[in-house]
Amino acid sequence: MTANPILAEVVRGNWVENLHRGAFVVVDANGAIIASAGDIERAVFPRSAIKSMQALPIFAQHADEKFHHSDAELALACASHHGEDVHVNGVAGLLSRLGLSVADLECGAHAPTNAAARDALRAAGVEPSPLHNNCSGKHSGMLSVALAMGVPTAGYVGREHAVQKQVRAAVETVIGEPLSEGKCGTDGCSIPTFAAPLRAFAYGFARMATGTGLSPEYAAAARRLFDAATKHPHLVAGTGHADTRIMEAFNGRVMQKIGAQGVQCGAIRDKGWGYAIKCDDGDMHASQAMLAGLLLAIAEPDAAQREVLARYANQTIKSVRGAEVGVLRVTMPA
Amino acid sequence: MTANPILAEVVRGNWVENLHRGAFVVVDANGAIIASAGDIERAVFPRSAIKSMQALPIFAQHADEKFHHSDAELALACASHHGEDVHVNGVAGLLSRLGLSVADLECGAHAPTNAAARDALRAAGVEPSPLHNNCSGKHSGMLSVALAMGVPTAGYVGREHAVQKQVRAAVETVIGEPLSEGKCGTDGCSIPTFAAPLRAFAYGFARMATGTGLSPEYAAAARRLFDAATKHPHLVAGTGHADTRIMEAFNGRVMQKIGAQGVQCGAIRDKGWGYAIKCDDGDMHASQAMLAGLLLAIAEPDAAQREVLARYANQTIKSVRGAEVGVLRVTMPA
Repeated sequence: MTANPILAEVVRGNWVENLHRGAFVVVDANGAIIASAGDIERAVFPRSAIKSMQALPIFAQHADEKFHHSDAELALACASHHGEDVHVNGVAGLLSRLGLSVADLECGAHAPTNAAARDALRAAGVEPSPLHNNCSGKHSGMLSVALAMGVPTAGYVGREHAVQKQVRAAVETVIGEPLSEGKCGTDGCSIPTFAAPLRAFAYGFARMATGTGLSPEYAAAARRLFDAATKHPHLVAGTGHADTRIMEAFNGRVMQKIGAQGVQCGAIRDKGWGYAIKCDDGDMHASQAMLAGLLLAIAEPDAAQREVLARYANQTIKSVRGAEVGVLRVTMPA
Repeated sequence: MTANPILAEVVRGNWVENLHRGAFVVVDANGAIIASAGDIERAVFPRSAIKSMQALPIFAQHADEKFHHSDAELALACASHHGEDVHVNGVAGLLSRLGLSVADLECGAHAPTNAAARDALRAAGVEPSPLHNNCSGKHSGMLSVALAMGVPTAGYVGREHAVQKQVRAAVETVIGEPLSEGKCGTDGCSIPTFAAPLRAFAYGFARMATGTGLSPEYAAAARRLFDAATKHPHLVAGTGHADTRIMEAFNGRVMQKIGAQGVQCGAIRDKGWGYAIKCDDGDMHASQAMLAGLLLAIAEPDAAQREVLARYANQTIKSVRGAEVGVLRVTMPA
């Protein structure tokens, strides 16, 4: 297997300390490659980066007609949220309207990603619940699909459950590739995750951003989801996170979503391009540097957008005493 | 630059999710290569992996004759400790005997590495102090060197301070390579760290383990430090850490020390071999998998030692709900 190129590095003092290899691809909705590096045909797990694709059955199964998901609830369905009050309350609100509760979530409980929310919970002596799980918005959306389909909600995370079959079919439709049990794992939140070529995920984002090649129903659903996410960037991640800050700065032009283990996917909507990045070693900070470098290179950012991106393209490393001692920086052509 | 080989990988379900490249080398005290992979001449930052080398000036500057460091205090000088009571009290005890206090430590404060110690401190409403810094044992040792040399202790972390010049000279002596300001950075605890070929650090550990090629004074100091560390594995790291568990299991045969950003250094003392590992991307868990794979391959472990090593050679990845969903595993020839 040929090694992917070095796309980010850590420099300490005047010497390189770490190397981060990876691949990225930018593609239009017809599949034309705009830019790429590394092996873009290697199958990778997209993890949470494709939650917007996994939310499509909300529309395909007409759950939206039955439960009237708000834009905020759709943004939460696309989110890896940080467990702040607005996230937790948003998910709890949808569950309540579905006639369900936190007990129906099968994602498991973890402490809020947001440090202040985590500390507040601890100070209150409250154990984290599945509502605080960063995937609880996606899961509440999946529960709405189960109800709309008239199937039992219990076990909705299982590979053979009707909901996950719909999720898989929606992803296959959008990325234009079959998914396979031979390249399948279980995500941290217990649902299946299927590996597919990096290029296919970028292609899927380009198609969702433009509607090109999708049925009118899918195209409308994709537009509604991307509009919801880019209107509510704080709901898609949380305070201070790159996805939130980048989507805020681009004011609807960019749909951006992180995935665990160094995945980044998104779309530059006005250009009709989708992109996907995988850092080979799974480092999240390095993948954010790669993302920032890519958007600096291709998204024609204005000054304010450049300022936000520059913070991630060059991430300062500090000593315990707070002195700047190094930098994690993108090295890809930009 | 040729890519180093893949030495560890993450498999989720039935598909590879992450790749970790790196280099390792095992060498004897005459410099003969016993085993290696990747570019072992590339200069890497050893970070905390060479604290035992950085402790040599305690002897070279006769601080030991003046302050009579205990084995426990020498183990702490070699340690990246976890801020448990026994670590904090040990460092505080030496400082007190030196006529110094926590205020003289220039490493900065961070919360204890050990989760229970961290929670206890938080529950008591006590802010972490520099005593809790994982490097406070090394720093208290350096303060003893300053006092023995009769130089001001203030600024002892500085590159131009007499103590750091002695530390640099000791490392150069042991690894047999000049260190250079052209390959230098600042460590997290504010002292200088110099990059040198990975092979040289393994060679230094082989020389410290055997005394071969060292002056009688250096050889005796090295033996005293390795004896202290391997007699007190819990002081060198902490409860449940790989270094502690591995050194306990090998009962004096193996000196093992982790360094930040994926470095592992040590010696198989009865064989007279030193080893050094660097995970290119800095991943600590991956470097521990590589370490375990290397020791399984070359250290002739007994059944109990194999059991400890196997835990790190194959690290289970769990979902939030606790199901086994993947593994981080060593892939190097073993």
